[in-house]
Amino acid sequence: MPITKRCLAELIGTFWLVFGGCGSAVLAASFPNGDVANPLGIGLVGVSLAFGLTVLTMAYAIGHISGCHLNPAVSFGLWACKRFPSSELLPYIVAQVLGAIFGAAVLFLIASGSPNFSLSGGFASNGFGEHSPGGYSMIAAFVAEFVLTFMFLMVILGATDRRAPQGLAPVAIGLALTLIHLISIPVTNTSVNPARSTAPALFVGGWAVAQLWMFWLAPILGGVAAGFAYYFMFEPSAREQQLKPDFEG
Amino acid sequence: MPITKRCLAELIGTFWLVFGGCGSAVLAASFPNGDVANPLGIGLVGVSLAFGLTVLTMAYAIGHISGCHLNPAVSFGLWACKRFPSSELLPYIVAQVLGAIFGAAVLFLIASGSPNFSLSGGFASNGFGEHSPGGYSMIAAFVAEFVLTFMFLMVILGATDRRAPQGLAPVAIGLALTLIHLISIPVTNTSVNPARSTAPALFVGGWAVAQLWMFWLAPILGGVAAGFAYYFMFEPSAREQQLKPDFEG
Amino acid sequence: MPITKRCLAELIGTFWLVFGGCGSAVLAASFPNGDVANPLGIGLVGVSLAFGLTVLTMAYAIGHISGCHLNPAVSFGLWACKRFPSSELLPYIVAQVLGAIFGAAVLFLIASGSPNFSLSGGFASNGFGEHSPGGYSMIAAFVAEFVLTFMFLMVILGATDRRAPQGLAPVAIGLALTLIHLISIPVTNTSVNPARSTAPALFVGGWAVAQLWMFWLAPILGGVAAGFAYYFMFEPSAREQQLKPDFEG
Amino acid sequence: MPITKRCLAELIGTFWLVFGGCGSAVLAASFPNGDVANPLGIGLVGVSLAFGLTVLTMAYAIGHISGCHLNPAVSFGLWACKRFPSSELLPYIVAQVLGAIFGAAVLFLIASGSPNFSLSGGFASNGFGEHSPGGYSMIAAFVAEFVLTFMFLMVILGATDRRAPQGLAPVAIGLALTLIHLISIPVTNTSVNPARSTAPALFVGGWAVAQLWMFWLAPILGGVAAGFAYYFMFEPSAREQQLKPDFEG
Repeated sequence: MPITKRCLAELIGTFWLVFGGCGSAVLAASFPNGDVANPLGIGLVGVSLAFGLTVLTMAYAIGHISGCHLNPAVSFGLWACKRFPSSELLPYIVAQVLGAIFGAAVLFLIASGSPNFSLSGGFASNGFGEHSPGGYSMIAAFVAEFVLTFMFLMVILGATDRRAPQGLAPVAIGLALTLIHLISIPVTNTSVNPARSTAPALFVGGWAVAQLWMFWLAPILGGVAAGFAYYFMFEPSAREQQLKPDFEG
Repeated sequence: MPITKRCLAELIGTFWLVFGGCGSAVLAASFPNGDVANPLGIGLVGVSLAFGLTVLTMAYAIGHISGCHLNPAVSFGLWACKRFPSSELLPYIVAQVLGAIFGAAVLFLIASGSPNFSLSGGFASNGFGEHSPGGYSMIAAFVAEFVLTFMFLMVILGATDRRAPQGLAPVAIGLALTLIHLISIPVTNTSVNPARSTAPALFVGGWAVAQLWMFWLAPILGGVAAGFAYYFMFEPSAREQQLKPDFEG
Repeated sequence: MPITKRCLAELIGTFWLVFGGCGSAVLAASFPNGDVANPLGIGLVGVSLAFGLTVLTMAYAIGHISGCHLNPAVSFGLWACKRFPSSELLPYIVAQVLGAIFGAAVLFLIASGSPNFSLSGGFASNGFGEHSPGGYSMIAAFVAEFVLTFMFLMVILGATDRRAPQGLAPVAIGLALTLIHLISIPVTNTSVNPARSTAPALFVGGWAVAQLWMFWLAPILGGVAAGFAYYFMFEPSAREQQLKPDFEG
Repeated sequence: MPITKRCLAELIGTFWLVFGGCGSAVLAASFPNGDVANPLGIGLVGVSLAFGLTVLTMAYAIGHISGCHLNPAVSFGLWACKRFPSSELLPYIVAQVLGAIFGAAVLFLIASGSPNFSLSGGFASNGFGEHSPGGYSMIAAFVAEFVLTFMFLMVILGATDRRAPQGLAPVAIGLALTLIHLISIPVTNTSVNPARSTAPALFVGGWAVAQLWMFWLAPILGGVAAGFAYYFMFEPSAREQQLKPDFEG
């Protein structure tokens, strides 16, 4: 599959991640807001499920086309584990960021069709310190984003290992993202994905752009650390690989 | 499998989609309504899960019989991707609409056995403007239905592609419908399916029937657009197909 | 596998269905009851998930031993579809009812270790009329139990059809039971399973025992109707079967 | 795979179980605490899902490396069923406890970055009597932990039986842990895992350490009982095994 088609798939997939994940948060998390007797909104469980399902569904839909990274930290982590060529990092990441921005734009178009919408609600941006949903410090936020992305990549690298059950990796990876959100929305609104953080921040501007550096730095460091760790700890050596057939073809 | 048996399967499956999806909304979403100290109802998360599970369960149950479309927009999208013959569009869609109406009828029979039931609650009909649950404008509703059906078909077409893991497509497709509801119940009560919209509207009448055109137009346009897009972007060319064995045989 | 071992598996599995499903309802549904500011309980979504997961987990655990019916209506439905011998109906159903009673007994032992427990809360019994959680009439309750068991068996018979994807039937069947609960807990507290209804009723006595007839009659009629329907509509004829290899061997 | 690498995998996996499971409880269960009009927190459903997903994701990620026990009661249960050598019990359990403590430590680092954090909230420790979330007695707590671990091992042993569908065991096992939490968080805050109980207790001290004996004793007894039970009831005899090929290689 040529690189242009693979980047198109990454763009569509990251569109879905931001439109669906951030969309569930913006449109449905606390609906109808303030109606105590009838709290129907999807809350943090629903948003966590939505983010995970964007990845689960896209991994089945485009996994065979682009590998379905949808996330610069994932592309970097796969590269560190020697499963993705450095020459394709830049086009993949550009496609992911463009898809994310497109997702936020369509979400903005829909959300602004409600009389109650305002960007001052944060538009699902990530933040720390006074912009952390639960007021978590910068250090706590950095540790959370680093550790969660590290573990996200451990799941991705393990579940797509040729020794793991074939065909189920999208379930493991999608539900890992659900789990990560169940843990950490109160800390940073959960990023583990620089492209996902960038898109709403461009709409909100101000603090959201000023804090964006962390949501590029921590996830990519976590992803790269996991890539190296998996490679040196668990990747079968060249000699072991020769002894087995390669099921991934 | 003859077309009559396949249409019978579509009718049963769409019955389940409407009876189960709309049924969870009508019977269980806000139970017991207004009891602040004991909010047991399934809310939007439960309704989203229910709609998705109707499709997931039916895709395993009748996927091998009819392909389990359960949705005119899906049949049109598969047709646009050259995976479904135009000659079968009409019988499939008739079966889907009849199954949907039958589902709403049985739901009405059960729901009206409660002292608190009233059709003025909307009976899970779809709507926009003043009939949007969150008051979203007609344009926002149209964009949401178009984009969500487009992405629904991308997941369906990708997950049933012969290059995707076999046997897991029902999980991806069912949970895609859950995700779509997590995002958009506040916008239009979520259709992405003209048959599902038609059935409750016939019981509610008035505004619900008057707004029905959008829930035929936007999903079918979105589905057809996705079918063409997948075909031209990602479908293996005839020459590529000759080079590989056909696993779907 | 000898019939005694298979009945032992059915007993353990139905123990799990009642202990886990009714247990989640009795112990966790509205915890801590009445604390408006901190509604942590699992509600109807959690109970629905729990019932479904008892079946999903057991179907992987004992499906290869007994087929994992866990439900007299399922055994009758498989019999009607000519997939289960009439000679084994009685031992399976006895094992299912004994397992269910054992599950309710262990649940009673645990639940009564809380200072707030009382059997007058219903102990997850099924009911209609004034004992329906939402006050649904006897006819509404009967229709709901009949239709839901009919569709439950359609999913079971379809997902275990040799033409369906192998290995995923437990997911489809377990999540079908989750879906059925998402729809109908307000109507009858959801049975679709005479063994599940019998166990808590024996502890509660009175009205719960008096209404038990419906939760034997409606599910078994629904299951048998689905078994006949699937057999005549969708089961491959003997001649079609000869033309294909049998993958279930 | 050498024992050091397998223990490293167990350490990482148990880190994830405690960091993710207890983390979701500590950080997100009742967020924002006390805001009646906006109850967004994940509640007991979210915490149940999180614990289960730590195991589901790790079982796909490291199942092929260490078998993904993540729990001394699981290691003991597999040993009792003659599927795990006694010589490896100690290194596995040491790795599990170290990983759990590391998980609680990183969680403490993040949680203490919030102005509202206090260890007096329990830090997700397990307890009985006055430290049971719902005030359940010591006997009720013991019975619950014993029975739930027994059934957890039945699912693990059955779903990884060579006669069960290959590749889906992680789904069954992870969701079994979700189910166990849906039932029993009000009783003991749910352990079924001595390593998981030990880690937060070391941070809380006092009553949590004083009650720790039960969360080693009951789960391990339950696991061992299930291992023996499965072996004698359902494990194919040596002669039966000779008649079939071994798919697990």
